[in-house]
Amino acid sequence: MATQTEKPASASAAIDFDKNGGTVAAIAVDHLSNRVLMVAWMNREAFDETVATRRACYFSRSRNKLWRKGEESGNFQVVHEIRTDCDADAVVLVVEQRGDAAACHEGYESCFFRKLDGGQWKVVDQRRVDPAKYGPGYGHPPKKSAG
Amino acid sequence: MATQTEKPASASAAIDFDKNGGTVAAIAVDHLSNRVLMVAWMNREAFDETVATRRACYFSRSRNKLWRKGEESGNFQVVHEIRTDCDADAVVLVVEQRGDAAACHEGYESCFFRKLDGGQWKVVDQRRVDPAKYGPGYGHPPKKSAG
Repeated sequence: MATQTEKPASASAAIDFDKNGGTVAAIAVDHLSNRVLMVAWMNREAFDETVATRRACYFSRSRNKLWRKGEESGNFQVVHEIRTDCDADAVVLVVEQRGDAAACHEGYESCFFRKLDGGQWKVVDQRRVDPAKYGPGYGHPPKKSAG
Repeated sequence: MATQTEKPASASAAIDFDKNGGTVAAIAVDHLSNRVLMVAWMNREAFDETVATRRACYFSRSRNKLWRKGEESGNFQVVHEIRTDCDADAVVLVVEQRGDAAACHEGYESCFFRKLDGGQWKVVDQRRVDPAKYGPGYGHPPKKSAG
């Protein structure tokens, strides 16, 4: 048991959380298609929990607390693989998106559903689920929208 | 000509650079495999230049200046597609990695060449090029290394 509890600490010790105010960018990609599903942030605690549970746990900077992805919607992410980059200040999570197969709180497979086309941002993906099903308090309030 | 110069400004106007101190996370993925090649930062100027030139231009936070990817190494990136996310605070660049097909300054295809395996970070990719060929001043000094 000692070995199991030491391992996550060892993994996060190598990550440089200082450079970006205690967080690193965490990019979730689909384990089959490699598609970027979302970008969020992790502090050390979120990273350690993700390693220990193999479910993606991020850190919500706006809410200043751990964000266990899918805790409201059921759209959790099983983590198949974790990579870090040359500077150890970003991580890639290779995930299996469960629930309604929608990583985005707006009901899309990927948060990156808008593409720049002729100088304009256009929604080019199909919504997979109406997030209204998760209740009126679901998700975070929209900020500046791209269109 | 007026239309052409207005388009990039219009595209970046929708991006929320404020949330992260004037920058957004920019994730470059390979146009064929979807693989995440690197994560960097863009300020508005870098984003506008990327849209205008279709070559990836980032903002180096450590050097506090525009970073025209490949300007030293020739490993530039032709941008095929640009996406933004639901909150418009991150972008994905779908790129064709030119030069030595190495996005990473350490000579790997992707900066994410280390994988968490049994609690340890292991290099699991093959180096594509020895970056020493780009000269002694190439790249940024290594910070905290993952292993």
